[in-house]
Amino acid sequence: MSVIDVGILGATGQVGQQFIALLANHPWFRVTWLGASERSAGKPYRDATSWRLPAPLPDAVARLGVEAAAPGRAPKLVFSGLDSSVAGGIEAAFAQAGHMVVSNSRNHRMEATVPLLIPEVNADHLSLLAAQGAATGWKGRIVTNPNCAVVVLAMALAPLRQFGLKKTMMTTLQAISGAGYPGVPSWDILGNVIPFIGGGEEEKIETEAHKILGVVKNGRVEDHPLIVSAAVTRVPVHDGHTGSIAVALEQHPDLEALIAAWNSFRGRPQDLGLPSAPPQPIVYLIEPNRPQPALDANRDGGMTVTVGRLRRCPVLDYKFVALGHNTIRGAAGAAILNAELMHREGLL
Amino acid sequence: MSVIDVGILGATGQVGQQFIALLANHPWFRVTWLGASERSAGKPYRDATSWRLPAPLPDAVARLGVEAAAPGRAPKLVFSGLDSSVAGGIEAAFAQAGHMVVSNSRNHRMEATVPLLIPEVNADHLSLLAAQGAATGWKGRIVTNPNCAVVVLAMALAPLRQFGLKKTMMTTLQAISGAGYPGVPSWDILGNVIPFIGGGEEEKIETEAHKILGVVKNGRVEDHPLIVSAAVTRVPVHDGHTGSIAVALEQHPDLEALIAAWNSFRGRPQDLGLPSAPPQPIVYLIEPNRPQPALDANRDGGMTVTVGRLRRCPVLDYKFVALGHNTIRGAAGAAILNAELMHREGLL
Amino acid sequence: MSVIDVGILGATGQVGQQFIALLANHPWFRVTWLGASERSAGKPYRDATSWRLPAPLPDAVARLGVEAAAPGRAPKLVFSGLDSSVAGGIEAAFAQAGHMVVSNSRNHRMEATVPLLIPEVNADHLSLLAAQGAATGWKGRIVTNPNCAVVVLAMALAPLRQFGLKKTMMTTLQAISGAGYPGVPSWDILGNVIPFIGGGEEEKIETEAHKILGVVKNGRVEDHPLIVSAAVTRVPVHDGHTGSIAVALEQHPDLEALIAAWNSFRGRPQDLGLPSAPPQPIVYLIEPNRPQPALDANRDGGMTVTVGRLRRCPVLDYKFVALGHNTIRGAAGAAILNAELMHREGLL
Amino acid sequence: MSVIDVGILGATGQVGQQFIALLANHPWFRVTWLGASERSAGKPYRDATSWRLPAPLPDAVARLGVEAAAPGRAPKLVFSGLDSSVAGGIEAAFAQAGHMVVSNSRNHRMEATVPLLIPEVNADHLSLLAAQGAATGWKGRIVTNPNCAVVVLAMALAPLRQFGLKKTMMTTLQAISGAGYPGVPSWDILGNVIPFIGGGEEEKIETEAHKILGVVKNGRVEDHPLIVSAAVTRVPVHDGHTGSIAVALEQHPDLEALIAAWNSFRGRPQDLGLPSAPPQPIVYLIEPNRPQPALDANRDGGMTVTVGRLRRCPVLDYKFVALGHNTIRGAAGAAILNAELMHREGLL
Repeated sequence: MSVIDVGILGATGQVGQQFIALLANHPWFRVTWLGASERSAGKPYRDATSWRLPAPLPDAVARLGVEAAAPGRAPKLVFSGLDSSVAGGIEAAFAQAGHMVVSNSRNHRMEATVPLLIPEVNADHLSLLAAQGAATGWKGRIVTNPNCAVVVLAMALAPLRQFGLKKTMMTTLQAISGAGYPGVPSWDILGNVIPFIGGGEEEKIETEAHKILGVVKNGRVEDHPLIVSAAVTRVPVHDGHTGSIAVALEQHPDLEALIAAWNSFRGRPQDLGLPSAPPQPIVYLIEPNRPQPALDANRDGGMTVTVGRLRRCPVLDYKFVALGHNTIRGAAGAAILNAELMHREGLL
Repeated sequence: MSVIDVGILGATGQVGQQFIALLANHPWFRVTWLGASERSAGKPYRDATSWRLPAPLPDAVARLGVEAAAPGRAPKLVFSGLDSSVAGGIEAAFAQAGHMVVSNSRNHRMEATVPLLIPEVNADHLSLLAAQGAATGWKGRIVTNPNCAVVVLAMALAPLRQFGLKKTMMTTLQAISGAGYPGVPSWDILGNVIPFIGGGEEEKIETEAHKILGVVKNGRVEDHPLIVSAAVTRVPVHDGHTGSIAVALEQHPDLEALIAAWNSFRGRPQDLGLPSAPPQPIVYLIEPNRPQPALDANRDGGMTVTVGRLRRCPVLDYKFVALGHNTIRGAAGAAILNAELMHREGLL
Repeated sequence: MSVIDVGILGATGQVGQQFIALLANHPWFRVTWLGASERSAGKPYRDATSWRLPAPLPDAVARLGVEAAAPGRAPKLVFSGLDSSVAGGIEAAFAQAGHMVVSNSRNHRMEATVPLLIPEVNADHLSLLAAQGAATGWKGRIVTNPNCAVVVLAMALAPLRQFGLKKTMMTTLQAISGAGYPGVPSWDILGNVIPFIGGGEEEKIETEAHKILGVVKNGRVEDHPLIVSAAVTRVPVHDGHTGSIAVALEQHPDLEALIAAWNSFRGRPQDLGLPSAPPQPIVYLIEPNRPQPALDANRDGGMTVTVGRLRRCPVLDYKFVALGHNTIRGAAGAAILNAELMHREGLL
Repeated sequence: MSVIDVGILGATGQVGQQFIALLANHPWFRVTWLGASERSAGKPYRDATSWRLPAPLPDAVARLGVEAAAPGRAPKLVFSGLDSSVAGGIEAAFAQAGHMVVSNSRNHRMEATVPLLIPEVNADHLSLLAAQGAATGWKGRIVTNPNCAVVVLAMALAPLRQFGLKKTMMTTLQAISGAGYPGVPSWDILGNVIPFIGGGEEEKIETEAHKILGVVKNGRVEDHPLIVSAAVTRVPVHDGHTGSIAVALEQHPDLEALIAAWNSFRGRPQDLGLPSAPPQPIVYLIEPNRPQPALDANRDGGMTVTVGRLRRCPVLDYKFVALGHNTIRGAAGAAILNAELMHREGLL
């Protein structure tokens, strides 16, 4: 199989670094182009960035020159980890110029013809791309992945759709890496909890969940009618967003049926054997005190969502805990899985 | 005013140390007796304990000899910070022998004639004491304070009783000091979240809330019919339990009315000017990212519950965040306030 | 006694906030003027700053309007918590205009006629002020306090001068508050150690120690010949710089003599009973595992340096651990004590 | 190559779990026997332990039954992660019975005929084994690895032996995993530094360094005359002991020569290509703020010691920072590398 060249928009940021780390040994994709702000442009990547991941910076990438975040010399497929303050226009410019933009940024997520994709959950949303060109005039396309917290909720709820999702509440305990770099000052979070995350985090969770779990009808997504309430907090954890979740269902299966639904859940990535697909997207942990971010966030390369503590809820019907790696399953890894799916579906 | 001698049961534990620190300059109470396990008995307190609080160990207490946790030489009023594995029998023995036991332990909380007291919320529950002697045969009495997490919920909900409490859900983010000492191993909690607390923490919250918010009728507590669901987590915070709370009410006042209900809430401790009573038991913080344990748990000596982030909830009616100091308002300070009320009500 | 009005330069920063918190109930000084960057000027302080300390923001200060950091309307005495990138010029302008600038910034510390003052250690260095006017042309004066890490070293060594200080090595474990705000990103320091602090921290320690411990002869400071080696690290601690220190002395007293020298050490602040003076500037802790920042940094309002673990060193003669509160004894509290001394010495 | 069965003594402890994790995919060794306390004996390992590592517990080990820690049914080669309170007698009993005991415990380290082995540093110390049988009467043998902090010092100094080691001082910043489990209570270490480690940690470093760096002459180790001073602290870091080190040398090479000595250092494990041998045992990092435990401790599977910040020292000649993974290079991984060397040297 021939290697596909890819570019990274926002290459020096937290998500950009995670893209580079995850693609270091990717069987299909090879990073050949890096785009960042004007300030970084012209420098070798090694000098333009302050590498902050425990995984080593690959030499081949370290030597690449950083370019301005403008289309022209980039390969057709670009991953975007751009900050939302600039992502909207830049990503549109790349799509306009014919690039396939697989983005982690929030800017285009809610547009009608832009898929908000979790390949195990709504692979059929890729069908929106057919109409995207007409709607936008772009030669290329934009595909997005969800906010790093809602991905945990949506994956945990997707296998329960068969029982009729009515209402859900989630209180999150979110890792600091979700805020990028420099992100949360240590003075604020060391030994502390901050019960707030800016940028409309709660609204994003509530809104994106409807689209992700929705179905495509007549070329557009019909939102899922589930009622969603999110309360977010930041905790002193490096990686891994934990959700304390309650859900009301139309049917009332016993607890074992829910666990079976999670453990048996599979999607297109597993059917197709995509390189970044975890063998079992959702794993229910039977230990009474799991999942925990320090122990479980990295399961299967950070692409598995772990669930535990299922029990009856006196207010809604069931409550449980779910956990996902926010910069992998909730950001760079999600986008890579999206691109893998697009490649196998012939969309690249 | 004459000084009242008090004893401390479980003097060497985490709560016992907090009792001693809070009573160091108390205007009414003076620690003159310390009870602990056989292992500590016979030693000066300084040698029997490993003092772990930033507040200094008072010299007068440091020199006291520790005695076995048996009635006999203890003063009439004893505070109990005993571990629940032994508190049941020892506290009963002290009550049997005529002591007024003001306990932080869970063992007797749910007994029909034992008040589960938050003086601002249910001071009238002290009327249960009249029947306690007949029910138990004790010459003395036992009064308890609630679990350190439910106190945050109950105080936040008490001012909302006027609007008709129907249902509530709380996800807690609880401090490590709630687990006593040595408590949570650092290996488990550093940079991590544990979505579980043993000892039936969730059940305690759900059960105790009904009693605390209930009303005394015909000499017994009629539980409040509120439906309560609790999901608990442990976070790497020293002190201060945070609750992400949602509540459904019969009436639907606007947000300002709820805030006014919290800020204007006062109880018997404020009326009586009890020494440990905070001037305003519940303070609503208007900053969008508060309350936070590192900044707000110690407000007014740790006796104030802070609330913030009130907003509409798509699932229940309202959601907000509440915070209380778990070893002060949720343990030793709670018991001291209980004893202060009992003293002023002529019950000591 | 009449109250002395004071201004705060850099009022919105981490040190500026600490000045305001420490002066909230000061018996002599009252904050009446706040200077900050142009961005903040014109706003009430409450709106210009994001208050980040557990201590409450005093209402009287919250209502003060922030002004640009230029002389003119400020009172004669100004405390400076300015960032070193701007402190040099602004402080000089204030001194030029006749203000007494008591500064925490590093810019003027090493100038020949500027005292680098720890009142217990080198109160006589204030005599440099006589020559400062002639040397600079300023109508006012600048007095500085040392770097937050060297103050721990210098105070621990000062009582040992009698034994002949020859060489010292210190490895520090420094708190995050020393980096100001936003300071150290949580991603970098949570569960981690950074063995480096920018801005020439090690050089500052090595250089400033010589001046602080030096003696004034003929109107100038003769540096102490002690050889100093510093190695600095940042640790995930909120407040309190810990030093692992070894020292070679000309004499070789027994360990008890060193402990006695520390515990009996007193200086001008204690003689004069200055409001911020701790009763015993250095306290030797006998517990084998102390001092610890979480337990000991706040001793006596954060103005006491605690020392412990004195033992023989196979390489130099003695080794021990010392700890001081970096934003109080090492910054705002240090400057306030300096101003108190200046006031009592008739220099304001 | 045939697989070698191995047993684990102290299988349920922190080091025991690390042995199991590291041996999960070992090309030579297969865990077939688990020994622990009487309390665990008779249970499947899955039930006898509370697995606390992010790496998954291998199914094949999970199903093994735990036996009492007595010789008899164990394979010839046993790794010991026993607590030092019991390791002395049990390890001797296994050696007596003919087992090759490769131990991480401190009990036998300083015995004259027991190698205290770092394969890159003193592989020739294995020659002591020839005399061990006669000295002890054991049919088997005991080989030990050093304390988890001294291994960092000894590896960093080994390449400098050529320049003449005279004196060294090290202040450590040690991870909590070094204390085992439950180990350090979170109340004590969260946001704190403890400048003390029990069990004679400083003495172990000072003593063991002499033996490790010594040379075998006439069948016994002649201690290295280097003067060593250690000051230890515990910091809130999961894994990785950091050392702030200064050293005086007989020669005074320039800094580049020291860096070259580190980077070019190789030993028997590299010559033999042992499975757990890192390609470059010591890596000098050129970034000014490295090494850091969160970023560098896991390098090459945790077997590489990283060094950085080399600079001149005004007191001794040079100072630098060194870091090693305390439960891998400083415990289980060290023992496994020892066993690999013994196997290739024909000693198993």
